[in-house]
Amino acid sequence: MKFLHTADWHIGKKLHNFDLKYEEDDAFKQIERIAEEEKVDAIIIAGDLYDRSLPSEEAVKSVNEKLKRLNLVDKHPLLIISGNHDSATRLNTGSEWFKATNLFLNTKISGAFEPVEIEETQFFLLPYFEPQEVRNYFDRQDLKNVQETMQLIVEKIKEKFKPNMKHVLVAHFFAAGSTQTDSETNVMVGGLDAIPTSYLNDFDYVALGHLHDARASQAEIIKYSGSPVKFSVSEATSQKGVWIVDTEKISPKFVPLVPVHEINVLEDSFDNLISPSVYEKYSKEDYYAIRLTDTKVIPDVINKLRNYYPKILELRRVGEIQELKAEENKERDLTDPMKLVSDFFTEVTGEKLTSNQQKWVKNALKDVNKK
Amino acid sequence: MKFLHTADWHIGKKLHNFDLKYEEDDAFKQIERIAEEEKVDAIIIAGDLYDRSLPSEEAVKSVNEKLKRLNLVDKHPLLIISGNHDSATRLNTGSEWFKATNLFLNTKISGAFEPVEIEETQFFLLPYFEPQEVRNYFDRQDLKNVQETMQLIVEKIKEKFKPNMKHVLVAHFFAAGSTQTDSETNVMVGGLDAIPTSYLNDFDYVALGHLHDARASQAEIIKYSGSPVKFSVSEATSQKGVWIVDTEKISPKFVPLVPVHEINVLEDSFDNLISPSVYEKYSKEDYYAIRLTDTKVIPDVINKLRNYYPKILELRRVGEIQELKAEENKERDLTDPMKLVSDFFTEVTGEKLTSNQQKWVKNALKDVNKK
Repeated sequence: MKFLHTADWHIGKKLHNFDLKYEEDDAFKQIERIAEEEKVDAIIIAGDLYDRSLPSEEAVKSVNEKLKRLNLVDKHPLLIISGNHDSATRLNTGSEWFKATNLFLNTKISGAFEPVEIEETQFFLLPYFEPQEVRNYFDRQDLKNVQETMQLIVEKIKEKFKPNMKHVLVAHFFAAGSTQTDSETNVMVGGLDAIPTSYLNDFDYVALGHLHDARASQAEIIKYSGSPVKFSVSEATSQKGVWIVDTEKISPKFVPLVPVHEINVLEDSFDNLISPSVYEKYSKEDYYAIRLTDTKVIPDVINKLRNYYPKILELRRVGEIQELKAEENKERDLTDPMKLVSDFFTEVTGEKLTSNQQKWVKNALKDVNKK
Repeated sequence: MKFLHTADWHIGKKLHNFDLKYEEDDAFKQIERIAEEEKVDAIIIAGDLYDRSLPSEEAVKSVNEKLKRLNLVDKHPLLIISGNHDSATRLNTGSEWFKATNLFLNTKISGAFEPVEIEETQFFLLPYFEPQEVRNYFDRQDLKNVQETMQLIVEKIKEKFKPNMKHVLVAHFFAAGSTQTDSETNVMVGGLDAIPTSYLNDFDYVALGHLHDARASQAEIIKYSGSPVKFSVSEATSQKGVWIVDTEKISPKFVPLVPVHEINVLEDSFDNLISPSVYEKYSKEDYYAIRLTDTKVIPDVINKLRNYYPKILELRRVGEIQELKAEENKERDLTDPMKLVSDFFTEVTGEKLTSNQQKWVKNALKDVNKK
C-alpha cells in the first residue's frame, strides 16, 4: 500500500502578526492534489493540526473543512494523532463517529496499542505524551524519563505486531540527532526529551511530527514530514513537502510543496533595495527578512522599505553604523543648545542645517528661553 | 412516533461558584432512563448544550460523552441545534460525520430548510440566530427585526411541508408571552426579541430551548423543556423535567427529573437554623438560600451557618437590624475612646465588656496614648 505523510499544520498560526490562512489553504490544496496523483491508500497527519490548545473559531472551521474534504469528499482513510500544540480533549471531539468513514484520530496512550490495519499494514497511532501520562497508564511511577516511558510503549506495541504485516509508527516527538528550526517551541535539542532512534528499529517506517524541517532526521525509515508552510525566517530556504511511502519498497519519496508566498532574506544596501532593478524582482505578496548593509543612519527606514516590501518580518543591520559609533563616546557640549540641535540633525539625516533652518532653530530657542 | 424533548443543558455552568457536574451527570442519567422506558424514537436537544461559546476541556469532554452515550451506545437518533450560549462553529465540529448514525446537529440557518424525516414526521432544526444572519441568508437587508426575519424563515420552512406528515419545529428563542427565571441571560421580556406564537400555529409541535422553566410557555403545542438542572435560586421551586411527545396524539407529557441536590430557600431565625430539629431535616449536599429573620447583628454569621449548610448560595436579611438602625443616627462621642470601644463591642456582640475586658482595653489605650 501507499500512504502520504504530513504533519505540523499548525492551523491558526501567525507569522510575525501576518495571518497565514491563505498560505495554509494553498499548501493544503497541493497536498490534496498530490494524494490524488499518487493514488495513496491513506493519509497520515502526525500531530499539531492546530497551533494552540484553544484554537480560534476560524481555525476550528478550517481544520474541520480540511478533514471533511480529505475524508468525506476524497474518501481517503486518515490516520491522525494529537501533537503538543493540540488539546487532546478538544481534538478528540467526535472521534468515535469518525471511524465509520475510516478517519482514525487517536489522542490517548491507550489507543496506541490498538493498531489500525489497512491492507497489509499495521499503523500504531501514538499521540504526543507527557511521561506522567505513561506512568499512570502502566501504573509505573518508577519510570524516570521520557526515554524509559517510550521504551515501555514500544515494547507493548511490539506485542501487537502481526509478523506477516508491515508496521508503521505515527508519533510526535523529538528524535535524537535531529536538527531543528526556530518555529518549534519547547524543543530540547538532543537533550532530555530526545528519543534514541535505536528504539525505533523494528518499525518499517516511523512517520513523525514535531520538527518543521523535512530534513530534520537523516534516518531512512524515520522521517519528519515538516510543516507544509514556512513558519519562521530560519525556514526561508527549507524545502517544504510531504513523504510518499510505498510499504512494499519503504523508500520514502519526498514530494515538494511550492510556497504560494516565499520568505526572502535580502542582504543589501538601502539604495539598492529601493532601486527598481532590485525590488521589481520581488513580489509584494512575499515575506521579507532584510539585512541592511548600510553604515549610515536612515530615518524611518522600515516604513520606507515597506513601500517596496510590505510584508517585512525582520529588519537587521549587518553594516556597522559609523556615525553613531563615532558619536557614542563623544562628550556632548550641553552649554550650546544651537550646537546640540544642529549635531542631532546631522546625526539623524546625514546633512547639515541650511541657513534658513538655522534661523528657525535660533528663533525657536529664543522663544523657549523667554519663558 | 414518540420523541423526548430536552434543552438548555448548559454543561460547564457554575451555580454561585459551585461546580454542577455531579448534578448535570445525574440529570443526564435520568433523561437516558426516561428515553429508554418511554421507548422514544428520537431525542431533541433544543440548544445551549454548553454554557459558553468557549467551553472548558472538561465541558467538551462531558458533552461528547453524553452524545456518545445517547447516540452510539443507546442508538437514539438525535436532533440538535445550537443555542445562544453555544459557539455554532465549535459545536458544528464533526457534524458531517454524525449523520451516519442519525445524529443530526444543525447550527446554520440554511440547515433549517432541510428537514430531517423520521417515520411520518418532519423535523425542522432552526438554530439560535441573529437577525443579521437571516438578512444575509435571504439577501434581504430590509428586514427590520427578529419578528420579520422569523416570518420569512417560517414561510420558507412551510414550503418544505409534506402534507401527509407531521411537522415539528426545533428552535431556540423567546416566545412572546413566556415567563422567565433569573438564569437566562440577555432575554428581553416580551420585548424586542419575542417571537409571536401566532407564527407557529402551523406546526404540530414546537420544541423550544432558551427559557429554563418548563412552564414558561402555556401553549399546548409550544413547549420549553426547561433546563434539566436548577441554575438559580429563582428556580428553587421550579419542577425540572422533559417532554415526551407522541406525534399521533400531540398531547405532550411532562416527565419530571428528580434533583439529586435541591435548592432550598430557608426563612428563619439564626437560632432556629442552627438547632438540630431544623438543620437535621436538610442535607449538607443541598444548596441553600437563607433569609434571616433576626433583628440583631450576628458576627460572622455566614461562616457559622456554613457549619450546618455548607453550600450557601445567598444570605439575606429579612428582619430589620434594630440596633444598627438605632445607632445609625446617634452622634458618637469621639472624646472618650473607652466608651467608643465598649459601645462598638456591644453593637457587634450584643454583650457588655466584662471587667477583665475593660481592664485590657484601658491598658491598650494607655499604651497607644504613650506614643
